[in-house]
Amino acid sequence: MDQRTGLPVVGIIGAGQLARMMHQAAIPLGQSPRILADSADDGAALVAHDVVIGDYRDLADLRRFAVGCDVVTFDHEHVPSEHIRALAADGTTVLPSADALRFAQDKAAMRERLGGLGLPGPAWARLESGAGGLAGVEALAAQHGWPVVLKAISGGYDGKGVWVVATPAEALTVIEDAAAAGIALMAEEAVAIVRELAAVVARSPFGQGAAWPVVETVQVEGICVEVLAPAPGLAPEAADEAQKIALRIAVELDVVGVLAVELFETADGTLLINELAMRPHNSGHWTIEGARTSQFEQHLRAVLDYPLGSPEMAAPVVVMANVLGGPTDVYPAGIDERIHHCMARWPDVKIHLYGKGFRPGRKVGHVTALGDDLEIVRARAKAAADYLSLGGPDVH
Amino acid sequence: MDQRTGLPVVGIIGAGQLARMMHQAAIPLGQSPRILADSADDGAALVAHDVVIGDYRDLADLRRFAVGCDVVTFDHEHVPSEHIRALAADGTTVLPSADALRFAQDKAAMRERLGGLGLPGPAWARLESGAGGLAGVEALAAQHGWPVVLKAISGGYDGKGVWVVATPAEALTVIEDAAAAGIALMAEEAVAIVRELAAVVARSPFGQGAAWPVVETVQVEGICVEVLAPAPGLAPEAADEAQKIALRIAVELDVVGVLAVELFETADGTLLINELAMRPHNSGHWTIEGARTSQFEQHLRAVLDYPLGSPEMAAPVVVMANVLGGPTDVYPAGIDERIHHCMARWPDVKIHLYGKGFRPGRKVGHVTALGDDLEIVRARAKAAADYLSLGGPDVH
Repeated sequence: MDQRTGLPVVGIIGAGQLARMMHQAAIPLGQSPRILADSADDGAALVAHDVVIGDYRDLADLRRFAVGCDVVTFDHEHVPSEHIRALAADGTTVLPSADALRFAQDKAAMRERLGGLGLPGPAWARLESGAGGLAGVEALAAQHGWPVVLKAISGGYDGKGVWVVATPAEALTVIEDAAAAGIALMAEEAVAIVRELAAVVARSPFGQGAAWPVVETVQVEGICVEVLAPAPGLAPEAADEAQKIALRIAVELDVVGVLAVELFETADGTLLINELAMRPHNSGHWTIEGARTSQFEQHLRAVLDYPLGSPEMAAPVVVMANVLGGPTDVYPAGIDERIHHCMARWPDVKIHLYGKGFRPGRKVGHVTALGDDLEIVRARAKAAADYLSLGGPDVH
Repeated sequence: MDQRTGLPVVGIIGAGQLARMMHQAAIPLGQSPRILADSADDGAALVAHDVVIGDYRDLADLRRFAVGCDVVTFDHEHVPSEHIRALAADGTTVLPSADALRFAQDKAAMRERLGGLGLPGPAWARLESGAGGLAGVEALAAQHGWPVVLKAISGGYDGKGVWVVATPAEALTVIEDAAAAGIALMAEEAVAIVRELAAVVARSPFGQGAAWPVVETVQVEGICVEVLAPAPGLAPEAADEAQKIALRIAVELDVVGVLAVELFETADGTLLINELAMRPHNSGHWTIEGARTSQFEQHLRAVLDYPLGSPEMAAPVVVMANVLGGPTDVYPAGIDERIHHCMARWPDVKIHLYGKGFRPGRKVGHVTALGDDLEIVRARAKAAADYLSLGGPDVH
């Protein structure tokens, strides 16, 4: 407990934009989170008071960080499972637990577990390491056709660690490169999808669950560029099914905090689980202004075992669009000028910048627009995000 | 400019709840504000990265603080005018300027200036120091009757520095106590009011203005306990007049940032100016969730000379209620338990805690409720605030 405020202390491992936005959400709750940052220049380290610099792969650093934290949670899922277990064995409350987080860290374990629960997903297979893995890809292709999706079982994000291969030769190249890099692979059926959806929910240790409306996520080259809330034209039964899937996963896997379930929607309306994240997620950024309780506040409430907040929407339509870095040669002088123009042009669109350098293609911020008409709201969000994305078009 | 983010640096003098909420609003703008705190335990110091400990009455501390700030602004109006002028003479951009801020620091100067502009206010008079001041009080009473309001010309807040006196004897006691304490006094007609209103606006150096809907403020013993947005039943012409008064003051006094104009409404609908604040104000806390742009974001946009954001409301009715400290003997153990119950009972009511100790009667937080029906929304906000106010009723 923080003796100054009488409130428990939340430790956040990782200091990227998710920790930065969690910190922002923590302030009204009276909280002063402790944040473990790789560097003093990390986005969350620039704005938080209680920052510990350390390596999340180093148990000694994690232990030093955890002293005085009433609960420790995460900005990412890259902390080694054995370290999380060691912290828990020390008596530190870590949420989500290593047992739950495993299914966000290991895609094969996730497929096995969710398959065992009868939850829907694409056909898949673990692959042997090296050239022997090709047989598994060919067997999957024999049943479901080419192309096939190859995935790193752990460590991938934003399209990294995912390869779509159209022939055995292409598959072999990926398999051999992965073996050389020590990356274990799995193969998945390439589902013919209409679009991607996300069901974001939260669950507290007490067992309370809360679900935001199901959203549509728009990916370009594996990176989420837009989120439309609620998912346009989604049948109420499908939305209900998606929320039930996410809440069931949260219960069965004993997830505490925010759980984002990425889903594929096929032409016949079937929903298939794509990936899980057990933390605030890009598909939930819209909730900061767009819902009564943001995913960042909800994650904190959940790990603190506070009652969860209302996930009700704050407007009929909410659209989030990501701001991506452009050519570095226009950074940093360009961004302040672009903020001026963006604010002048769209006074109601909310800007979120993450305190990160504008490397090409990197997520450096997002914008959120709210309103009644999807077409108008979406156009405004996209235009504002493009405008802020250095190297993007400068006239709208 | 902050070389890490490419963005200008805002310095905030003072680290109370206003600085804390400004810091919260600064995070999505990509900002890392620098905050001058009296103590490392100040509310904003607990949650910000770039905190300088120093005395706002000490020019050397202010100069040390201002190094590297692109603009310096305030959490309160207690910085000596001569120090603000010295910083400006050093080349530091300080907003609002000493010339503008004077009218929020010196109530007599404010009355003179606004009277000169033909803006409406109660009858008033400067008082001579000591027993000689009584003549001024009696002259005002002869024209406007008893009681008379005596005010410290500078330094008062939350009802402190204001005395309502019903007789010459009572007046003399206040006058003599003030003289002994070296406090200069003024006298004002005690206006027969129906209620108090506030018109909160913002203005940028570029000259852009923005006005939130006029609100009703409910005071108990001089402390704001509730704010109703928009002011219930206020005639559109009166709301328009209040906004015009506030925007005109902002222009005439060259205010940059948020300006809150507290107003009296009399039985015949007349509006009279009560007080000014040139910073985010308790009457604007509802804007955090209740308006598209909060007063804290708007203040930052204004002092950065960014275009102002939309002040549009996010719901038809928004009510803020302050959380006040109760008996200290139930702090700090009690607050965490109360948060649990408050969240469970009112999952959509937003809690804001300021990281302050719960001293009796002290503003330690606020809650905000949104909805369509004033009666329901107000009851929920009041109940939640009472519940969190330690020592308040514990059953609703």
